[in-house]
Amino acid sequence: MKNIVILGSTGSIGTQALEIIEEKNDLAAYALAANKNIKLLEEQCRKFKPKKVCVYDSESAKKFKENIKDLSIEVLSGMDGLIELATMKNSDIVLGAMVGMIGIRPTIAAIKSKKTIALANKETLVCAGHIIMDLAKKEGVDILPVDSEHSAIFQSLNGENHDTVSKILLTASGGPFRGKSIEELRNIKPEDALKHPNWNMGRKITIDSSTLVNKGLEVIEAKWLFDVDAKNIQVVVQPQSIIHSMVEYCDGAVIAQLGVPDMKLPIQYAFTWPKRKPMYNNKLDFWELKNITFDKPDMETFYGLRLAYDAIEKGGNLPTVYNAANELAVAKFLENKIDYLQIPEIIDYSMKNCSFLESPSIEKILETEREVYELIESRW
Amino acid sequence: MKNIVILGSTGSIGTQALEIIEEKNDLAAYALAANKNIKLLEEQCRKFKPKKVCVYDSESAKKFKENIKDLSIEVLSGMDGLIELATMKNSDIVLGAMVGMIGIRPTIAAIKSKKTIALANKETLVCAGHIIMDLAKKEGVDILPVDSEHSAIFQSLNGENHDTVSKILLTASGGPFRGKSIEELRNIKPEDALKHPNWNMGRKITIDSSTLVNKGLEVIEAKWLFDVDAKNIQVVVQPQSIIHSMVEYCDGAVIAQLGVPDMKLPIQYAFTWPKRKPMYNNKLDFWELKNITFDKPDMETFYGLRLAYDAIEKGGNLPTVYNAANELAVAKFLENKIDYLQIPEIIDYSMKNCSFLESPSIEKILETEREVYELIESRW
Repeated sequence: MKNIVILGSTGSIGTQALEIIEEKNDLAAYALAANKNIKLLEEQCRKFKPKKVCVYDSESAKKFKENIKDLSIEVLSGMDGLIELATMKNSDIVLGAMVGMIGIRPTIAAIKSKKTIALANKETLVCAGHIIMDLAKKEGVDILPVDSEHSAIFQSLNGENHDTVSKILLTASGGPFRGKSIEELRNIKPEDALKHPNWNMGRKITIDSSTLVNKGLEVIEAKWLFDVDAKNIQVVVQPQSIIHSMVEYCDGAVIAQLGVPDMKLPIQYAFTWPKRKPMYNNKLDFWELKNITFDKPDMETFYGLRLAYDAIEKGGNLPTVYNAANELAVAKFLENKIDYLQIPEIIDYSMKNCSFLESPSIEKILETEREVYELIESRW
Repeated sequence: MKNIVILGSTGSIGTQALEIIEEKNDLAAYALAANKNIKLLEEQCRKFKPKKVCVYDSESAKKFKENIKDLSIEVLSGMDGLIELATMKNSDIVLGAMVGMIGIRPTIAAIKSKKTIALANKETLVCAGHIIMDLAKKEGVDILPVDSEHSAIFQSLNGENHDTVSKILLTASGGPFRGKSIEELRNIKPEDALKHPNWNMGRKITIDSSTLVNKGLEVIEAKWLFDVDAKNIQVVVQPQSIIHSMVEYCDGAVIAQLGVPDMKLPIQYAFTWPKRKPMYNNKLDFWELKNITFDKPDMETFYGLRLAYDAIEKGGNLPTVYNAANELAVAKFLENKIDYLQIPEIIDYSMKNCSFLESPSIEKILETEREVYELIESRW
């Protein structure tokens, strides 16, 4: 039995993780954390009977305690609650599936407690990759990627020697606006950007997919996860989302992982790794597939992706600036407060105007986020 | 230093193997064998200075001895010579790159001498897979496939557990006549069939590619190499020959090996395995690739492929019948003695009319070949 702690159980990854746990009799939902969606969290608690729960928002936590007082589940709150969940004695895997920099501290706590990390929270590596990867190495902890692309890369590295990797080929659907010009992007509304052709995901990540900022964040994550220079990470547009990513080796062989576009595979793989367990109704039919196309990403029009390469090349707190600026810009766009094209504009402006720090501590990373927010709020 | 014995050094695989050995300073051409092409073999001897040489044809061997009497290279001949080469004391790898059933006995001898086998000779596994694989297991010898598809499957199995394989996806270019009807195939001449769109290979295998019999032989080989039932080996037409084959696992993940269509990669991989060594000028450019298409093989028109499934399903000496009938039919076609469509017709006829043997010994396999030849010669 593997005891799994899910930080972010009411989100897209969290709910799919629980569907997998429900199907498998050797996985248990040991503890669950959510922010405010206490209605869904209550359903999850009644079904999965976790040992502990954390409701991050303290007001919601009070209400939640009332609602489930008939169950013997301990209810915690805030960052202390998340950290307590991340370090529970008998847990095996901590799934970091929150959105935002809130994931960094619980992940660090989990690593220090020698838990296997299933990581869906992008910000943890984007902002604190230099701290996280060193710590994981020191503690001998495995960081298992939980998204389609990094899981595909991880699977394509199975049984291979890291020294023979020549390139990571990170695939991208190209988003719903692939092929459009800057002019055509000018009047994009949130409802347009929220329609993703292949993947069913949360709102923020769907916008990020359309701007290619999501791919930019993934480039930064890949650099940390696989210890590869950004110049050797090539984004390949593959609009059908069948090839989930690839690794090129020094002899020219390219190993790829293909599959239907379904997040359940990378989630389950992180839970069952190093084994594979059966999963049904998700098989590719190559006789019916017809074709897979490839393209070069348009980094002029979708320059949010190019900015990610700039951020990781200069390093320090710039990936944090990139991520925080994007987060606030997307929030403002979803509230109709800024135009679509202002998203990369705000990232670019923030990267040029924030104070640069070479090797930021966790405190400095959080300070950088605040500085970015203030900078943006003062102007937009 | 790895000492490599090349059985079939003047053929397509043999010459490419020597190009690889020439480039690498930790590989040596330890011994070479050829049939009759003593001109090329002499060039190879002067360049690579092997310890021993076998010229299979005894007349050619005599001439060859004269021609290279200035070199201190021992010259052998016949099957005894091949077996002596296959079992040389200080050799590490025996590359079986002959065409035909002649490869079976030297391969068995090499396995018994605990040499790593780099296997390009299809007939060895097609006809004697039941003997070879058991023997290799008993002797603890690795059989490394040297062709694009099986090498791709072998690479896609790296680091994975065999029990989790659900399907082998064997890719096929579909040959130059893909999409044609029986009517359109009626008047195919050897010169039409010898033009392969992607691969530069020997004459016999090029014809086999056009009839899909080559793919049929590969299905049988894959069954033995990877211990997978033929019903779980699916042929997928992928005309650009970019995906060299794939493995589907029980969780729906498909691992594939992609690359440019170049036999040097599988040859080198067998030589350097379990490591990878650099190889240049053979990188795929996904930004320029545009697309990969897929299709179902037309097993009605190209029923030579379907016959392979019948042969391996019934087993015994039927794969030998399939192979031997095809070999003679192709030779007759290349000599303009039969029509193109008579190739599968002859295979089908032979499979229906040869005596069936459940578990043939090597002697019985060779007898079966003779029986097939007589049967065909008596009718065509």
